[in-house]
Amino acid sequence: MLTFYYAPNTCALASHIALEQAGADYRAVRVSFAKQEQRSPEYLRINPKGRVPALITERGILTETPAILQYVAQTHPKAALAPLDDAFEMARMNAFNSYLCATVHVAHAHRMRAYRWADEPVAQEAMKKKVPQTVGECFELIERELFSGPWVLGERYSVSDMYLFTLASWLEADSVEPSRFPQVAAHRERMRADPVVSRVLAAQAAA
Amino acid sequence: MLTFYYAPNTCALASHIALEQAGADYRAVRVSFAKQEQRSPEYLRINPKGRVPALITERGILTETPAILQYVAQTHPKAALAPLDDAFEMARMNAFNSYLCATVHVAHAHRMRAYRWADEPVAQEAMKKKVPQTVGECFELIERELFSGPWVLGERYSVSDMYLFTLASWLEADSVEPSRFPQVAAHRERMRADPVVSRVLAAQAAA
Repeated sequence: MLTFYYAPNTCALASHIALEQAGADYRAVRVSFAKQEQRSPEYLRINPKGRVPALITERGILTETPAILQYVAQTHPKAALAPLDDAFEMARMNAFNSYLCATVHVAHAHRMRAYRWADEPVAQEAMKKKVPQTVGECFELIERELFSGPWVLGERYSVSDMYLFTLASWLEADSVEPSRFPQVAAHRERMRADPVVSRVLAAQAAA
Repeated sequence: MLTFYYAPNTCALASHIALEQAGADYRAVRVSFAKQEQRSPEYLRINPKGRVPALITERGILTETPAILQYVAQTHPKAALAPLDDAFEMARMNAFNSYLCATVHVAHAHRMRAYRWADEPVAQEAMKKKVPQTVGECFELIERELFSGPWVLGERYSVSDMYLFTLASWLEADSVEPSRFPQVAAHRERMRADPVVSRVLAAQAAA
């Protein structure tokens, strides 16, 4: 059985949806950021980065959303969560996921985690102030260039949809108006109405 | 034939090495950051993000280092650049590449590209100042936890080695002393001595 570590309102939501959608045999363990459990010696033995998500498998521990998403898709091929038979489409999927991971999530993180990149409060405030602009520009690019529709990759639903949904759910908190991105906003509503997504959101809220 | 867009001294080096090592049928096109060619209308039609690398294939254009690395490995299986037959090892590889892409490269980027995340010069200076610490901490984690040895994944050489080599080549410029990380430093020397790597470095220097 897989053991999946997550915290609510983090990017771990994408992997949680993937596990549930795949019908994976897993149990979910909540890590309390409020209690700083991600910095506890116990958790650092699981993920020395002190972050979520982490997935314990029988072969070892995996971290990083793009890696876990592809792993869940590859080990549950019947769920059809990725274009496993097509290297080019896989690369499109991974390019999208890399953009979310390294650019969009990073832009967002400058609001709450600016201390990672500068010590001075005045610098942290300056970073926080720019987040609506940088996150807004990221979603403009997604809306205009990267999102094929009706799903991220086109006709084919994939883990990229789960990942986009996760990051798009932070728009209001980043003071970015979702209606600027009609395709992304409609996608978010469709995802939110999905029974698997609803189940995962309810489980994270109840834990 | 593939067309590969790169700029010297960027993360595009990793994909360039992968293409060369794979024996791919490609031509390399240099994008001059000094002339701001990455912002030209012509280049933005290739990669609307205004970044390198980009790879034009017969199916379409790919961006983002982790995606291109896996694509080159999957489309050139004889070169054995990734553990293609093992979903768990692929996930380890992708987790490592995601960490380089979203954490290590991002830490480094705060030295030269701090303007991405704050407008005020004082904030940009504060970010620049912290880079030796943040990049140093990333490489400590790689040295202590993520690097299996003799290669990133252990006995098996992979595209992760090319990517680590690329980012490790920036250590001195980030004022981080490589000798703090004996395994990473030795790996860098071994990579630099590789004839394929030498050939790519020479080609980028000569163009």
